[in-house]
Amino acid sequence: MTLLADLLSTVFERRTRWGKGAVDNRPFEELTADLIGATGEISGMNVARTILERYAACDDEEKLAFFRHLSERMTIDAGTVRDALDAYEAGQTKASYRAFMSAAEPPRQELIRRLNQVPGATKALVAMRADLLRLGKGEASLEALDLDFRHLFASWFNRGFLVLRPISWQSPAHILEKIIAYEAVHAIDSWEDLRRRVEPTDRRCFAFFHPAMPDEPLIFVEVALTTGIAASVQDVLSSERSMLMAEEADTAVFYSISNCQAGLASISFGNSLIKQVVADLSMELSGLKTFVTLSPIPGLSVWLETDAPYVDREDDERMRALAARYLTTAKRPDGLPLDPVARFHLGNGAEIHKVQARADLSEKGLRQSAGMMVNYLYDLSRVTQNHERFAETHGIAASAEIRSLSTTADKASA
Amino acid sequence: MTLLADLLSTVFERRTRWGKGAVDNRPFEELTADLIGATGEISGMNVARTILERYAACDDEEKLAFFRHLSERMTIDAGTVRDALDAYEAGQTKASYRAFMSAAEPPRQELIRRLNQVPGATKALVAMRADLLRLGKGEASLEALDLDFRHLFASWFNRGFLVLRPISWQSPAHILEKIIAYEAVHAIDSWEDLRRRVEPTDRRCFAFFHPAMPDEPLIFVEVALTTGIAASVQDVLSSERSMLMAEEADTAVFYSISNCQAGLASISFGNSLIKQVVADLSMELSGLKTFVTLSPIPGLSVWLETDAPYVDREDDERMRALAARYLTTAKRPDGLPLDPVARFHLGNGAEIHKVQARADLSEKGLRQSAGMMVNYLYDLSRVTQNHERFAETHGIAASAEIRSLSTTADKASA
Amino acid sequence: MTLLADLLSTVFERRTRWGKGAVDNRPFEELTADLIGATGEISGMNVARTILERYAACDDEEKLAFFRHLSERMTIDAGTVRDALDAYEAGQTKASYRAFMSAAEPPRQELIRRLNQVPGATKALVAMRADLLRLGKGEASLEALDLDFRHLFASWFNRGFLVLRPISWQSPAHILEKIIAYEAVHAIDSWEDLRRRVEPTDRRCFAFFHPAMPDEPLIFVEVALTTGIAASVQDVLSSERSMLMAEEADTAVFYSISNCQAGLASISFGNSLIKQVVADLSMELSGLKTFVTLSPIPGLSVWLETDAPYVDREDDERMRALAARYLTTAKRPDGLPLDPVARFHLGNGAEIHKVQARADLSEKGLRQSAGMMVNYLYDLSRVTQNHERFAETHGIAASAEIRSLSTTADKASA
Amino acid sequence: MTLLADLLSTVFERRTRWGKGAVDNRPFEELTADLIGATGEISGMNVARTILERYAACDDEEKLAFFRHLSERMTIDAGTVRDALDAYEAGQTKASYRAFMSAAEPPRQELIRRLNQVPGATKALVAMRADLLRLGKGEASLEALDLDFRHLFASWFNRGFLVLRPISWQSPAHILEKIIAYEAVHAIDSWEDLRRRVEPTDRRCFAFFHPAMPDEPLIFVEVALTTGIAASVQDVLSSERSMLMAEEADTAVFYSISNCQAGLASISFGNSLIKQVVADLSMELSGLKTFVTLSPIPGLSVWLETDAPYVDREDDERMRALAARYLTTAKRPDGLPLDPVARFHLGNGAEIHKVQARADLSEKGLRQSAGMMVNYLYDLSRVTQNHERFAETHGIAASAEIRSLSTTADKASA
Repeated sequence: MTLLADLLSTVFERRTRWGKGAVDNRPFEELTADLIGATGEISGMNVARTILERYAACDDEEKLAFFRHLSERMTIDAGTVRDALDAYEAGQTKASYRAFMSAAEPPRQELIRRLNQVPGATKALVAMRADLLRLGKGEASLEALDLDFRHLFASWFNRGFLVLRPISWQSPAHILEKIIAYEAVHAIDSWEDLRRRVEPTDRRCFAFFHPAMPDEPLIFVEVALTTGIAASVQDVLSSERSMLMAEEADTAVFYSISNCQAGLASISFGNSLIKQVVADLSMELSGLKTFVTLSPIPGLSVWLETDAPYVDREDDERMRALAARYLTTAKRPDGLPLDPVARFHLGNGAEIHKVQARADLSEKGLRQSAGMMVNYLYDLSRVTQNHERFAETHGIAASAEIRSLSTTADKASA
Repeated sequence: MTLLADLLSTVFERRTRWGKGAVDNRPFEELTADLIGATGEISGMNVARTILERYAACDDEEKLAFFRHLSERMTIDAGTVRDALDAYEAGQTKASYRAFMSAAEPPRQELIRRLNQVPGATKALVAMRADLLRLGKGEASLEALDLDFRHLFASWFNRGFLVLRPISWQSPAHILEKIIAYEAVHAIDSWEDLRRRVEPTDRRCFAFFHPAMPDEPLIFVEVALTTGIAASVQDVLSSERSMLMAEEADTAVFYSISNCQAGLASISFGNSLIKQVVADLSMELSGLKTFVTLSPIPGLSVWLETDAPYVDREDDERMRALAARYLTTAKRPDGLPLDPVARFHLGNGAEIHKVQARADLSEKGLRQSAGMMVNYLYDLSRVTQNHERFAETHGIAASAEIRSLSTTADKASA
Repeated sequence: MTLLADLLSTVFERRTRWGKGAVDNRPFEELTADLIGATGEISGMNVARTILERYAACDDEEKLAFFRHLSERMTIDAGTVRDALDAYEAGQTKASYRAFMSAAEPPRQELIRRLNQVPGATKALVAMRADLLRLGKGEASLEALDLDFRHLFASWFNRGFLVLRPISWQSPAHILEKIIAYEAVHAIDSWEDLRRRVEPTDRRCFAFFHPAMPDEPLIFVEVALTTGIAASVQDVLSSERSMLMAEEADTAVFYSISNCQAGLASISFGNSLIKQVVADLSMELSGLKTFVTLSPIPGLSVWLETDAPYVDREDDERMRALAARYLTTAKRPDGLPLDPVARFHLGNGAEIHKVQARADLSEKGLRQSAGMMVNYLYDLSRVTQNHERFAETHGIAASAEIRSLSTTADKASA
Repeated sequence: MTLLADLLSTVFERRTRWGKGAVDNRPFEELTADLIGATGEISGMNVARTILERYAACDDEEKLAFFRHLSERMTIDAGTVRDALDAYEAGQTKASYRAFMSAAEPPRQELIRRLNQVPGATKALVAMRADLLRLGKGEASLEALDLDFRHLFASWFNRGFLVLRPISWQSPAHILEKIIAYEAVHAIDSWEDLRRRVEPTDRRCFAFFHPAMPDEPLIFVEVALTTGIAASVQDVLSSERSMLMAEEADTAVFYSISNCQAGLASISFGNSLIKQVVADLSMELSGLKTFVTLSPIPGLSVWLETDAPYVDREDDERMRALAARYLTTAKRPDGLPLDPVARFHLGNGAEIHKVQARADLSEKGLRQSAGMMVNYLYDLSRVTQNHERFAETHGIAASAEIRSLSTTADKASA
């Protein structure tokens, strides 16, 4: 393994080794045709670099033009596909299958793969897709182009290629500053705040990385090791809390999960991340028996406005009952839970375990979740069956307490 | 970068962290359907592991059955593709494009991607394709299946994901033993022989690795640093040769290139490897001015039998002229050079620089190449134009000496 | 080398592997006797750990008692030494020499060595000496005890055991926070300030580390890469300066050198550090031609008060002349330069190259150095002879400009 | 920790960074005087390198001359020591103590410390001492010189500076070849033999390293994980044995311990190594309950010749009894066990646990140990008291079986 550790360090060194040649001023149309053409596979490195550098210097207007070129001129040709399909149906040979595959895949996919041969290109391509998502919204052909990016990224960022790493106070500063920047749930407001989340022995942080962009976390989760289930994020983040020896903890609380790369939207890592961290922490700390989240209920406030407009928000029990009812009964038209965080965790096979009042008193917590939070429980022995039931019948797994609370709320509102 | 080095070490640790669950005895048909199905993305890790472990224990007959299942039951459905294509033509929306993409990609591609989420799976899948190539030859549907593997592997083993590493006497033994095993040109017959090729300061070895299978070199090249161009492989490999300080060398001789993974056939690394090594060595040793191969001419003996059956093989000059003529004029029906090694290097943009008599006196060297060898020259300032001329017109780049020699042979045979 | 990289990681892991035994409540007197005794070499690990942990929990009074025990009860016995010396003179055998060596070395040296076998002990012992320096000042027997610490540390922190490492924005946060904490010349007031000193390509930082305390820099130097010699620390630290490509720089300016470990006082690293960094930067950046410091002149203000009390501090030229005169002519009774920073750099073989007015306008710079700074030049081709001349005759190397300025000042004051 | 891993890699890179200056042809006398002199601390790097390179090229005669120069001219001066001692007794000040310390330490110690500042010097100095031990035997002044080397090395190779590392088939070849070369108990005759000892999951190897010579193991131990106590080295080394999963083992058998560095003779690592490995394996494999050696009894054959000349060596029970009697009763004049291996393990606090007949049928095993072997038991809960009893009263810890066997032998011979 040490070989690997060592060898990876060269990935990025290469960046500087290749001299720059003469500036290549041809338009994108020619450059992309060149890269995709016969010689592109062999001598395309310079063309690919030129395209990426040129792109990086573009303004939004120029980027849109580049994307439109890809979406309109480097797409599939329906006639060609149909001919190849006919030929394939007529005789299913290696050649006819290859011809069909080639026709059915738009040339821009091969273009993106060839762009990726340049050192550092993966990161640049992820950023390119972030641009596309931002600029292409609502434009059908650009949304189609995005499906190609997404298709390739799903393959490149396959779970088997990702690496889970603990993030600690011993991590490099340039990684830590990204944790600060990307934290999306409970903002980190300074290096001291960060330190409180990653340095103490009862605080952990884990992130997924991809070997081709080792300086960029893809997603990370923050964990508090506790005795008993944490009831509020104030407790978790307090700078005055008393520290615990990790070995004494019986519970791991996942209190924040943040995606880092806008360009990897819809490439799902969260489920794998949580399960891997549960598995790793179980191995390391045999005292850990319970793995729960401490999650916001971002749709609660809006739902309360219509479903329980006159509730006394200071009445904790009533609020807990309503939160339980919201989580277990409020549904989208497609039958899935209305709450997006609930959809994520229930979809992963977690169950609704506990609701907590006055659990997030931040401005954002009060505004979105009426100060309430919820613990989703990850019990590895049940996640598969929970997940399957959820996937097949939209059945929601919940603790007896939650079910009982929800019933209370029903009665009360009846 | 040190983060990466460090973080990669976990990829394989995970292997042992997950407990084994109950044995899952369902047939491949059910397992693959399960993995590809709705729940496969979330909870498919165990199913994927089961399939891979089951497969690893199969005999050839069972493997063939598995492959046939993939090729026959998890392929595209022409009717569905046609419908999706029609719908897409009728209205080019995100949804219709997505539906077409989905129909046009055989489900086995998604199956292979999901199999790959298991730690260590990439190596297992490469081995699986090696089986397929071995067992599926000549069976059209299996050859089509192989195109799917190849398509995915070309994406996964994209140049941007590969890592070049020097191999030295300080490399781990389990890597070095693979160098011994995979050397395909000039066999390494012992650890002492290996040491002579990787330990001296005027001998180098470089390999490409993929982060997901860090214990497996993909391809490697052996290099001798010399003054002047090496004229025979005996000189290069002699245990009695006098050593050179690397700084004194003016020439790097690539005397052996070996692919290591049968399962990565047709995924081309050699061109990138050579150019990267040329670039890296240029950086490290500013005294190096010439980069050549010392290559076999494996088609020469057969060609001589018909084209110059009575040649005196002891006549070095005559043999060199014939070798030059063979390399520059003997063509396949498609116009490409008859000699496979020539096709490779000329396709990379190299040029035929020199031919050497009595250059490989091994049994294999005499049998295949009549003892002759050739130096292909890699001049980075010319490889692109050489490559393009070769790709477009099959034009062969050769030194004046080679062209002159070839003419001599023509005249002589006239 | 990767082995080493890898292997070192275990040094500190061991810390947690040893279970704690029963608490050992014996007094220091017994514990130290035990550790130094016959069984101490074999089974002393636990005793050593007990002593170090006990010590760490002591207050200053108790620490003083511990030190006095070492200084009074674990010192040499003059009578024993004299007897051993007599025996040795009478017959110079291995045995008599060994007996003398043993008698002439106070047992506390062996005690310190045996304490050091505990993982993490080196750092604890360095901290112990910091306590001793603080508490023992002026107490002859404690000052003698300190000589033993210093003797051992000079051996342990031998140049051959130190490792030079670049410090960058990619360094671990727990190292970087120590850089912030230890910077002694130009205070770093935030993580952003730190980033400006270590992240840009034209800013560098290097530190010496010891393998047995890898989390603790011993000494570090901050470097600015510039074109021409930096004339003020404001320019160097400005957040608005324009960045330079490292390759374009012709000068490296060492603008801050800070020792980190109070417990390593009088163990000199600065000279080695500067020369190593000069050598390394020369290798990396061939454009660098000039290596200078930008140093404070901490004794200047005091000297001006008596030697030029009425000088107009706004008269830059006059101030530069006086600074030059101060640096070249103000001496201690022993003939060495009065200015401590001058003693350090001239002792290293540097030469006084340039003096700069209004070069440090910070409160401290104005107070100590009257805002003046000086560039000492490190010319590796001359440092040895400069150093020797300085060591032998106290001769001060200075540029023609400095000598001329100094003369001006002399005349002016005449 | 990754910082350290990373940073150490520079230790040896430095070697090539310093250009070579003009050749310095002065004799050793001048060079050593120079290095030890006033300027040596600052500018001694080049002189130190010159001395080490010159020394490396010396023949034995010249090396002896060098050693004699050190032993005769760079030793303590009895008169100076006596004066300093008198002054110290008269007034115990910091200055008088420092003067005494300086007088009582021979200048050659400082010389060796200054030599050590050159990168790579530690290894060269260890080799130098190996020469001294070989050449200086019996020459009193050289034996005294050796005590100085030994004194410094004991400080430099302090347990706190050593690093324990597993050696496996993934270790670098240049380390593994040293394991082959240094194995002193049961010779390793090929790379395949080595692989059998380090690759299987039930075979382990651990070595101590020093950060300043990371390519050189200092001492290593080979371990077999077994169920029950291994009864013969043939079983342990057999290429046909059935493999065990490490997790299933209940016993760790230390079947070979080898020192690697002749120049570190009398610097004891073995005791620490065994205890560290016991602790580490206990942590990793909770199934391990018993830690024993499988050791030769190298003095047995000689002892049998006089104490039981007519014993039937085919009578296993009789042989076991005699071996037990030998180990528990045969003593040197100083009261310590006659058998050197017994002295080592009993001195470490191990106990004689079992004796095994026909346990080493190699030529060497039969010749020295009459084919017998012994298991010493390391029970960490008893090693300290065992060690202390052994150190204080030479009391030998042995199992009831051994004591009983020994009694049998006594009676039989009575």
